[in-house]
Amino acid sequence: MSAPDAALRGFRGWLQQRYGSVDGLNEAWGNVFWSMEYDYFDQIDLPFFTVCETNPAHRLAYRRFASEQVVRFHDVMISAIRRHAAPHQWVTHNIIPPATTGVDNAALTRALDFVSYDNYPLGFSDQLMAKASADAWKPFMRTGHPDLAALNFDSVRGLSKGAWWVMEQQPGPVNWAPHNPRPAPGMVRHWTLQAFAHGAACVAFFRWRQVPFAQEQMHAGLRRPDDMPAAAWTEVEQAALDMQRLGDLSVVAAKSPVAIIIDPVSGWVDDIERQGAGYRYDAVVFQYYRALRGLGVDVDFVSAGDAQLAGYRLVVVPTMAVVDDAAFDALHASDGILLLGPRAGAKTAEFSMSEGLPPGRLRDFVPVKVTSVETLRADCGGSIAYKGAAYESGRWRETIEVGDTDVIATYEDGAPAAVRAGRSIYLATLTDDAFLTNLFVDLCAEADVQITPLPPTLRLRRRGELTFAFNLDSVSARAPAPTGAEFVIGGSDIEPYGVAVWR
Amino acid sequence: MSAPDAALRGFRGWLQQRYGSVDGLNEAWGNVFWSMEYDYFDQIDLPFFTVCETNPAHRLAYRRFASEQVVRFHDVMISAIRRHAAPHQWVTHNIIPPATTGVDNAALTRALDFVSYDNYPLGFSDQLMAKASADAWKPFMRTGHPDLAALNFDSVRGLSKGAWWVMEQQPGPVNWAPHNPRPAPGMVRHWTLQAFAHGAACVAFFRWRQVPFAQEQMHAGLRRPDDMPAAAWTEVEQAALDMQRLGDLSVVAAKSPVAIIIDPVSGWVDDIERQGAGYRYDAVVFQYYRALRGLGVDVDFVSAGDAQLAGYRLVVVPTMAVVDDAAFDALHASDGILLLGPRAGAKTAEFSMSEGLPPGRLRDFVPVKVTSVETLRADCGGSIAYKGAAYESGRWRETIEVGDTDVIATYEDGAPAAVRAGRSIYLATLTDDAFLTNLFVDLCAEADVQITPLPPTLRLRRRGELTFAFNLDSVSARAPAPTGAEFVIGGSDIEPYGVAVWR
Amino acid sequence: MSAPDAALRGFRGWLQQRYGSVDGLNEAWGNVFWSMEYDYFDQIDLPFFTVCETNPAHRLAYRRFASEQVVRFHDVMISAIRRHAAPHQWVTHNIIPPATTGVDNAALTRALDFVSYDNYPLGFSDQLMAKASADAWKPFMRTGHPDLAALNFDSVRGLSKGAWWVMEQQPGPVNWAPHNPRPAPGMVRHWTLQAFAHGAACVAFFRWRQVPFAQEQMHAGLRRPDDMPAAAWTEVEQAALDMQRLGDLSVVAAKSPVAIIIDPVSGWVDDIERQGAGYRYDAVVFQYYRALRGLGVDVDFVSAGDAQLAGYRLVVVPTMAVVDDAAFDALHASDGILLLGPRAGAKTAEFSMSEGLPPGRLRDFVPVKVTSVETLRADCGGSIAYKGAAYESGRWRETIEVGDTDVIATYEDGAPAAVRAGRSIYLATLTDDAFLTNLFVDLCAEADVQITPLPPTLRLRRRGELTFAFNLDSVSARAPAPTGAEFVIGGSDIEPYGVAVWR
Repeated sequence: MSAPDAALRGFRGWLQQRYGSVDGLNEAWGNVFWSMEYDYFDQIDLPFFTVCETNPAHRLAYRRFASEQVVRFHDVMISAIRRHAAPHQWVTHNIIPPATTGVDNAALTRALDFVSYDNYPLGFSDQLMAKASADAWKPFMRTGHPDLAALNFDSVRGLSKGAWWVMEQQPGPVNWAPHNPRPAPGMVRHWTLQAFAHGAACVAFFRWRQVPFAQEQMHAGLRRPDDMPAAAWTEVEQAALDMQRLGDLSVVAAKSPVAIIIDPVSGWVDDIERQGAGYRYDAVVFQYYRALRGLGVDVDFVSAGDAQLAGYRLVVVPTMAVVDDAAFDALHASDGILLLGPRAGAKTAEFSMSEGLPPGRLRDFVPVKVTSVETLRADCGGSIAYKGAAYESGRWRETIEVGDTDVIATYEDGAPAAVRAGRSIYLATLTDDAFLTNLFVDLCAEADVQITPLPPTLRLRRRGELTFAFNLDSVSARAPAPTGAEFVIGGSDIEPYGVAVWR
Repeated sequence: MSAPDAALRGFRGWLQQRYGSVDGLNEAWGNVFWSMEYDYFDQIDLPFFTVCETNPAHRLAYRRFASEQVVRFHDVMISAIRRHAAPHQWVTHNIIPPATTGVDNAALTRALDFVSYDNYPLGFSDQLMAKASADAWKPFMRTGHPDLAALNFDSVRGLSKGAWWVMEQQPGPVNWAPHNPRPAPGMVRHWTLQAFAHGAACVAFFRWRQVPFAQEQMHAGLRRPDDMPAAAWTEVEQAALDMQRLGDLSVVAAKSPVAIIIDPVSGWVDDIERQGAGYRYDAVVFQYYRALRGLGVDVDFVSAGDAQLAGYRLVVVPTMAVVDDAAFDALHASDGILLLGPRAGAKTAEFSMSEGLPPGRLRDFVPVKVTSVETLRADCGGSIAYKGAAYESGRWRETIEVGDTDVIATYEDGAPAAVRAGRSIYLATLTDDAFLTNLFVDLCAEADVQITPLPPTLRLRRRGELTFAFNLDSVSARAPAPTGAEFVIGGSDIEPYGVAVWR
Repeated sequence: MSAPDAALRGFRGWLQQRYGSVDGLNEAWGNVFWSMEYDYFDQIDLPFFTVCETNPAHRLAYRRFASEQVVRFHDVMISAIRRHAAPHQWVTHNIIPPATTGVDNAALTRALDFVSYDNYPLGFSDQLMAKASADAWKPFMRTGHPDLAALNFDSVRGLSKGAWWVMEQQPGPVNWAPHNPRPAPGMVRHWTLQAFAHGAACVAFFRWRQVPFAQEQMHAGLRRPDDMPAAAWTEVEQAALDMQRLGDLSVVAAKSPVAIIIDPVSGWVDDIERQGAGYRYDAVVFQYYRALRGLGVDVDFVSAGDAQLAGYRLVVVPTMAVVDDAAFDALHASDGILLLGPRAGAKTAEFSMSEGLPPGRLRDFVPVKVTSVETLRADCGGSIAYKGAAYESGRWRETIEVGDTDVIATYEDGAPAAVRAGRSIYLATLTDDAFLTNLFVDLCAEADVQITPLPPTLRLRRRGELTFAFNLDSVSARAPAPTGAEFVIGGSDIEPYGVAVWR
């Protein structure tokens, strides 16, 4: 049986199991539309290479099936290793980078002892910022985007119960990005300490020695192909000394004050039904994250499916189209301020519009109705007003009926763009970084979350009693340490690309 | 038999019928070139996936064959419906949008009782203007390009003998364009009245109620998914009242003073042999059309194959590479001013260059010879001079021997760029909108066609005794009505996005 | 057997012959990496359509195999023609243009009596400069890039032992480029004389008469489709008169003072392992070439494999990753100044990094070690300083250990960017045209190579006793002839697009 044939057979079996009968599937998917009803499961194809657009419910089912297949295969391997190969050894797996596997990462990593991640800040940033202007890119081409490695660190920590590892840390130029710069001097140590600040238990470098043959011969190692120390060597020696100074790191991470909820199913939904060219799940999540990080706030990523939200003072849902029972219950169990972004609760689990219009069951939190959505070119957007200032609104704009809520932001025509009911806020549009920053300043003040507004080249992260400050600038920076702070590494004047740690 | 095998078999049979013998085909296509002669029909493949470029005559034959297959299948369905399903019912078919079906639309729609069209001004304009600057796009992102819906309305009216319908009118944001804005307030009524102004017998909205599942759940309806009236509801109510005021619309449309000749075969020729990256059949036709519309002139699209040109004061041929006998006779039967654009008469029916150089048999009208063609980058063009002013000339430029004609425009080096003989003009280059506008001002004056130069946000259209004025601007506009006009709808001050109709 | 099956079978046989055993192949390719070891040859596939990147050594082997197959087939045809069809006739073959065939052109053309080339300056330049600004493109859209036809002429002369031909000279607009301008008046004669200046024995025009049917009906000829003379006709008549004035051209070309070394294997290596998006073999070679041509210096292209370098005062190696024994011996046999560009000697013949780091065996000439490579976005580069001025450095930047050399240029951080040892220079970065120009000014002075700095619209070339000057400008130019020069064609004031020749 060919691979596509096996996939098709497996998919049909999976559909039979999920929906019981073909009538049940027709009903769940809304196949009455365009006369798509099936008579039996063997009529159903993989949702590819069709003349016209397939039912999004069909595509979502396939994404679920494909993810489950990967997880099942992964689990079989883990069991086999545990039983036969290394019974007394932990099992892990390196994920590059979490957001783009197309798989439910929480399910994938559940059977692992801990999760690992491969950290390539320069290559990932070159891809992320491929269309950035030279002015925007040049300051970060040797450091990586100031929030991208942190995003991945925090994502992996969320997946890992307890310890997590960097399995591959970039030690120099790599070979696979469109452009492959050298790290700025000090950045290998910087990234190493940053991983620990975000809760890593171990940072391994890839690789020990640059291999002079095959695919990765241009990928730097700690030692050159001629076995001499490479540029990163002394930085790693320095990082090892730094680790001794940091002392006990048995606490992986304190609970952060802010949680961002992520959810693979909603990511698939956003991907399947883009509606506007400017809407991408990953980019939406990243925007909320970097606004918080620019305020010096620590963030946890919490999976919607197994959310433990008690204790978070601020719970942020950048985009979560599908809200299953577990996610719904978790939001209810939370007592923090809840910020719901546009598209929250927009869809049922079977990719229909939510009952009674979006945000469906999330009306328990904010009683709004989304009556219409429009998407505009990013350079042709309108605006929203919040506390007297105007901010961009274009890529996604919902018209809402506001029910019994307080309007806190309005569109250029005065229509409501964000409303609040009790501890919960519904934001009806994608907007710019400045709006999110200013909103978070207000919400953090209300929630008693301490903020430290930072320039783009300075970032903070706490672990246990330690506060780490990271300078991505080519000049020295002032550490935002309180008076009387006891410096464990560095001092109040942080060297270019340097790190300071205080208690 | 697989679909490609069936297509290949059908194509070979079609070739045998058209050309009689393989020698006849070799001769017709000029297969002696590059030693492409065939020995028997079964050697001939579909013109795809070849290592080198196929003979354009081969590709044109395939386009003809494919179009005929579609028409035949369409006719079989129409007959079956007439005979078995609905003997006393009219049969129609919605076409989206005329220019891009790849099929001879005149042949396709001949067996229908009337032709319908699906009108999505915002999505079509988002695609048409995808590369426009923000300044150019933003004024029209909620109205659509001022001439695009009209182009399609007039095209469909040309196909339909008598009545025509809008089968689907966009009532709000749709789901399938790269960006999906909301219409500006009033535009749903505006588009509805515009369709009637251009001769529609009925405007149906798609859809009654937004469907909360399957592919089009983000496509607005007149009613929301929760069955409440959507934003367009009151506009459609208003349009219904407007219709009562308009009174009798039994006249579909008066004959317009200007005819633009269109021809699917010439569209295929232009597509197969682009010669310059800036040459596209649809775009060329659209440019002539919008120049006329900007002068407030009503336009009919007339198919080259069944042209009834008597009575048109101005006959415009933007691009018609192949002139068959019917088209040729129709041009002769016309007594209006004839404007031939570049490439007119350039090819035989079998995709050879016309006998004695282009424009071949059209030398009956203007005795010029095209001795050379060049195509330039749009931003590196030269110019033409007409009545002392300079205009762009780049995407397509022909060198012509002018014979016994009057030169009316010249290239930057003084060579002739447009000539006139009697009532006929040959324009040897693609040029800019300003030139076409100024040329049409002069030709309309000569032909006694009344013009009303309009800003981009105002358009006019007459039906019977009624004149409609459409304001696409976000501010009020002055209706260009004669003194003493009797207003049926609105008044001389047209509200933003509004409509005025007078007698 | 299908074509892909035959290719696969042929490739496996070729591998068996080249490597003897599968262990030998595994060892040569470094298949231990990523556990890619094969157990037998029939496991090896063509390096296409794989889930992950294939071993670059695998891809290089395929490129060698594919090139050899083409050469073998070519040789079979040549033998058959010689033996059966035309025993007493010479055999040639037109190559368009040398750099892009994907084949080892030196091997391909070895069995020919002489090599021919098809010269289409406008179409080739339209493709080369597709992303150039209008300001950069417009001056050359009717002349072609000032150095592109010359590059191809000199390349073909290098392949041909002795005489070479232009088999197809563009006589007007062609049909296959994205844009197809007319040549500026005089350019057909200009290109014709230019070919002779670069050593041609014959220039044939394509085509005699424009064919009014099939694929190339829009490709100009010397005569129009109606058999009247086309625009180029009188220019070719003029060129024929010019040829009589030039007299004896039995000397194909004097040895130029400067040699540029080219090598197909290194081109394949650069293509397979790009490392930075801005690195392309052809573009790198062209940059060195045009810097020399802008100084009025004649250049020979010499194949690395059969280099006869004695007598060249300056030997330039823009990019030669693989240095085989023949190339190595040739460099040793040379007594000129040797300029090695970045990536020189970087790889073994089997696509491993050179022993002891790049430039490997070229350390015989300059004892440097390349310890790291970085590639930057072209608009985010750093700089190099040479004699007090700064130049761009970004697309490719090597860190080098300089050994016992003189540093002649440095990066912005003071690290060495170019070094010299005796007669040899190693340049560690791709840089801008201004740097290469200024470096060549100095090296030519040292090597006693006469330079004549030229504007972009003026070029020189010597043949025997004759010096040709080519004016690409739309205004007259001053011929840089010495006082008392005897003009054979034209005079010291060269007409627009004109040519002057003096003794």
